[in-house]
Amino acid sequence: MKKIPVIIDCDPGCDDTIALLLAFANKVLDIKGITVSAGNVHINNTTENTRRLVGNFSSEINIARGCEKPLFKTIVTAPEVHGESGIGNVTLPETKKEIEKLNAVEYLAKTLKEATEKITIVITGPMTNIAVFLMTYPELKEKIEKFVIMGGSSIGGNVTPTAEFNIYVDAEAADIVFKSGVEIILCPLDVTMKAFIKDDELLKIKSIGSLASEVAFGAIDHALSFYKQTYGRDSVPMHDPCTIAYLLNPNIFEGKKAFVATELRGEFTYGETIIDYNDKLKRTKNVLVLNNINREAFVEMLYDSIKKI
Amino acid sequence: MKKIPVIIDCDPGCDDTIALLLAFANKVLDIKGITVSAGNVHINNTTENTRRLVGNFSSEINIARGCEKPLFKTIVTAPEVHGESGIGNVTLPETKKEIEKLNAVEYLAKTLKEATEKITIVITGPMTNIAVFLMTYPELKEKIEKFVIMGGSSIGGNVTPTAEFNIYVDAEAADIVFKSGVEIILCPLDVTMKAFIKDDELLKIKSIGSLASEVAFGAIDHALSFYKQTYGRDSVPMHDPCTIAYLLNPNIFEGKKAFVATELRGEFTYGETIIDYNDKLKRTKNVLVLNNINREAFVEMLYDSIKKI
Amino acid sequence: MKKIPVIIDCDPGCDDTIALLLAFANKVLDIKGITVSAGNVHINNTTENTRRLVGNFSSEINIARGCEKPLFKTIVTAPEVHGESGIGNVTLPETKKEIEKLNAVEYLAKTLKEATEKITIVITGPMTNIAVFLMTYPELKEKIEKFVIMGGSSIGGNVTPTAEFNIYVDAEAADIVFKSGVEIILCPLDVTMKAFIKDDELLKIKSIGSLASEVAFGAIDHALSFYKQTYGRDSVPMHDPCTIAYLLNPNIFEGKKAFVATELRGEFTYGETIIDYNDKLKRTKNVLVLNNINREAFVEMLYDSIKKI
Amino acid sequence: MKKIPVIIDCDPGCDDTIALLLAFANKVLDIKGITVSAGNVHINNTTENTRRLVGNFSSEINIARGCEKPLFKTIVTAPEVHGESGIGNVTLPETKKEIEKLNAVEYLAKTLKEATEKITIVITGPMTNIAVFLMTYPELKEKIEKFVIMGGSSIGGNVTPTAEFNIYVDAEAADIVFKSGVEIILCPLDVTMKAFIKDDELLKIKSIGSLASEVAFGAIDHALSFYKQTYGRDSVPMHDPCTIAYLLNPNIFEGKKAFVATELRGEFTYGETIIDYNDKLKRTKNVLVLNNINREAFVEMLYDSIKKI
Repeated sequence: MKKIPVIIDCDPGCDDTIALLLAFANKVLDIKGITVSAGNVHINNTTENTRRLVGNFSSEINIARGCEKPLFKTIVTAPEVHGESGIGNVTLPETKKEIEKLNAVEYLAKTLKEATEKITIVITGPMTNIAVFLMTYPELKEKIEKFVIMGGSSIGGNVTPTAEFNIYVDAEAADIVFKSGVEIILCPLDVTMKAFIKDDELLKIKSIGSLASEVAFGAIDHALSFYKQTYGRDSVPMHDPCTIAYLLNPNIFEGKKAFVATELRGEFTYGETIIDYNDKLKRTKNVLVLNNINREAFVEMLYDSIKKI
Repeated sequence: MKKIPVIIDCDPGCDDTIALLLAFANKVLDIKGITVSAGNVHINNTTENTRRLVGNFSSEINIARGCEKPLFKTIVTAPEVHGESGIGNVTLPETKKEIEKLNAVEYLAKTLKEATEKITIVITGPMTNIAVFLMTYPELKEKIEKFVIMGGSSIGGNVTPTAEFNIYVDAEAADIVFKSGVEIILCPLDVTMKAFIKDDELLKIKSIGSLASEVAFGAIDHALSFYKQTYGRDSVPMHDPCTIAYLLNPNIFEGKKAFVATELRGEFTYGETIIDYNDKLKRTKNVLVLNNINREAFVEMLYDSIKKI
Repeated sequence: MKKIPVIIDCDPGCDDTIALLLAFANKVLDIKGITVSAGNVHINNTTENTRRLVGNFSSEINIARGCEKPLFKTIVTAPEVHGESGIGNVTLPETKKEIEKLNAVEYLAKTLKEATEKITIVITGPMTNIAVFLMTYPELKEKIEKFVIMGGSSIGGNVTPTAEFNIYVDAEAADIVFKSGVEIILCPLDVTMKAFIKDDELLKIKSIGSLASEVAFGAIDHALSFYKQTYGRDSVPMHDPCTIAYLLNPNIFEGKKAFVATELRGEFTYGETIIDYNDKLKRTKNVLVLNNINREAFVEMLYDSIKKI
Repeated sequence: MKKIPVIIDCDPGCDDTIALLLAFANKVLDIKGITVSAGNVHINNTTENTRRLVGNFSSEINIARGCEKPLFKTIVTAPEVHGESGIGNVTLPETKKEIEKLNAVEYLAKTLKEATEKITIVITGPMTNIAVFLMTYPELKEKIEKFVIMGGSSIGGNVTPTAEFNIYVDAEAADIVFKSGVEIILCPLDVTMKAFIKDDELLKIKSIGSLASEVAFGAIDHALSFYKQTYGRDSVPMHDPCTIAYLLNPNIFEGKKAFVATELRGEFTYGETIIDYNDKLKRTKNVLVLNNINREAFVEMLYDSIKKI
């Protein structure tokens, strides 16, 4: 079976952690490297988290550190969701894994230049690294197979009343990516809020009893506590893992091609993602927007994957 | 029983027509006048429609013609929903009813100045008249009991991907009203999309067999055809009647106090209504936002009211 | 000789005071009323200042009080230039003159409706009253001969680096006026900074020895002190009087037709007046922009006028 | 005498050509490389023009090709000023000089990383390359001595009524540079419009009779023709050479520290440079703004330099 070459640009982060475990577990993905972004927590923490995750679970993968701050704005992080260090209360074992000397943009350039086939780029954090890369190396777009992105919402935001976190943190970067002309699959809150995992399903993962299951449990449980306290829910949406799940099995998703844009000017709506499902604006449909998921199949995929590691 | 003094500012309009019939039928409302706005169709048509509705069903009510165009923008109308003349295919019988010499702003000023008790203002179209009135006569705010408004949406728009028609047509006017400090009850699409009437319920209204039932049927049936064609629905939301229904029986509604604002700056989100249900912005909650309705009770109220006329 | 019918909309204010004295002195102007705006100081002060000026110097003229605050913004005043009460250190004698019952918008409407010939409207403060009037009575535009306005700048601002005070205070109102389609003569800082009066010229006015000369001296001397302290100048620009001077003798001015607009969106440039002298935007030239003046003739006109009162 | 290490980021361009000749002629500048931007003409032309200028006059200098288009906007060029190929009617002799394999951003990174002393960066075109560089390598800011920039205006624009060309073409890039925290010397139109060369002075340069003088004459004469036709002037401002002239002799300039920002939001003022000479905004003074020049000394420097080549 042909492997899918991917680079993962992420900011672990609780749900990034689950996304990475999902990716590590399934050998159909040929991970050409991980570039780290700032977002859920500071770049130092997201880089360290990535280093330990890779070191413990898939140590051959290269890691490159990315931009420290968004293109124009100051950084916004979400320690209340992800914990101060970024993966809830999880403390990963130390590892000898080292970070690349090249920064994220340089690493993307080198990898794509040398690639003999197109590479899919998965983005689960703010898109700063990718935007800077596209600005510096527009000629390398043709080496990108597609972007699979977690971000945006047409059903209300999780930072402001209308803006989702990943887009809000660097809306100008998102704008550059959405306008890049590269094929895009988007996992907005529209689908990720349906990709939740429940109390009892989480306990089943915990019961696997491996390091991976312990890390997964810790990462999810921390976010679950936040959701329980804030919204009174007994389940937690698995935002970032939707991207990897889509690559592993697109058939468990439904979606619609639509024009997608980022609001950069609004007084109240800065960072809102416009998803024109009903084609009211008559603009070119630049994104396949996922908006439904077979949740049971998704949770099963999570369980099976973590068991495999 | 104490009557509720109201002025209705409207742009009939198919669903404005139903709102007016609902108001005419229930004598608990003491209608101190109708001011006409431009919106669903041109001011000439909305004024003529109002004149004939009043002339045929409640001829003692004063009618004042309002502003021709929004504060800053050119007028946008929606003939595809409301028909060219504005009440679908309905042709109302001629009537001798005459329009006031005072324009809408002058009429509002005179009526409120002379009022011995506070008056509720119902707004079912773009808010131009009310905004100009507030700018010219800020001292008369204290004579307004509250605004009950149909407009806005937190669940996607019906003009642009995010903006609802009434707010979009004159977003600056909406901004002035939302910031006025007057008590506001808002019926956004959040509730009005749940206040729909079905095929068979409409036929039951038709079967009443009066002029009022014929007009109601004609007004609703035209919008229903549009919804069937465009969205494949066999029901049609009754947006504007929610305002009057709320005055007649607030108990059939649910709502939440929230900060509400209008986006005036966005490239894609101009005219969007921000409804901060979860208090993310920590701003003063200026509006009671209705977001649920007992639909059966509402449809029964419609039927009973039209039967009474 | 045919008289010029004018209404003056002003916010006295030091230089408004000189403008009014200039208008009172020259009987070629038929002053149909003064409407008072908020701006240099609070509406209570500008109204009281106008009342005393009219009561002492031209008591037959009607005065109507205008809008308390700008259309959208909160009021900004300039007591550091005009003194707390608004005419520097001048205390005008008490007078029995009374303010109209009609507010400024009502007074404008009544006067223009009844007018048998077109009336010129001079505006020397923020344009709130006129904007609200235009929104409420668009059909009365045809009774306006032209607007002669003090406001704007293409040579740097006096509030922000780019915005002039009168426009900045209510930029949305200015936008409505500039887009009204009515003929407009604009006196921006481009010309008013050249219409300055010097120390010794001011002393000559003082030496006239009348109440008018005393008031004029007091009004100008206060502004002069501000300019001396702030900019080290020994002269002071007579902004508002340029409007009346233009009506009295357009030949002492030079100007150019140009597209003029107000910036309402800028982060740093809100309230800036764009004057497209070189037609770079290829837009309709809606304003005659004055940008040069025969200063000696202007100062002579001031002296002669104040002597006449 | 200690040499000044510089990198020149430019888009030749008629006046860039003069700037480069000025730089080549004066050995006090140690030119560490030229990075080419798109602007006056297309990046292909600006790169080719740079290649021939360097090849003919200073062939040891490295040249790196920069970004093709601005960060967010599509490219705007000015062939009416600079001629289709970019240096008026000048055709430079062919040369074997080759362009670097590294692109501009990579070249800047490599050069600054390896530098043992801080390097001054001169920018005479849109600032795209520098902005992308700053976003990718924020840690290399400390290797930059200062930026010396031609751009902006507080005296009216040359593209729109308020915006100067270099800033307007990539206003977002300018914003990033102005906010970088690096020391900045700015040559806006405020000074460059005073740095003009006259007919007869140009003829004197022509009379030198070298290839350099011929190229200089051709470059200036083309712009001069444009100025003669468009503005009826018999002189032409030497915008870009002011930057190099400042490095060669800062004493012939006057300037003032001020807060400088770029307007990114305005409807009419997008790309305007705000220069807050009078500190109205009370913001940190981030730029030394040059606003006067000893023109005779400047023209003499031009003549002497071209003679030296």
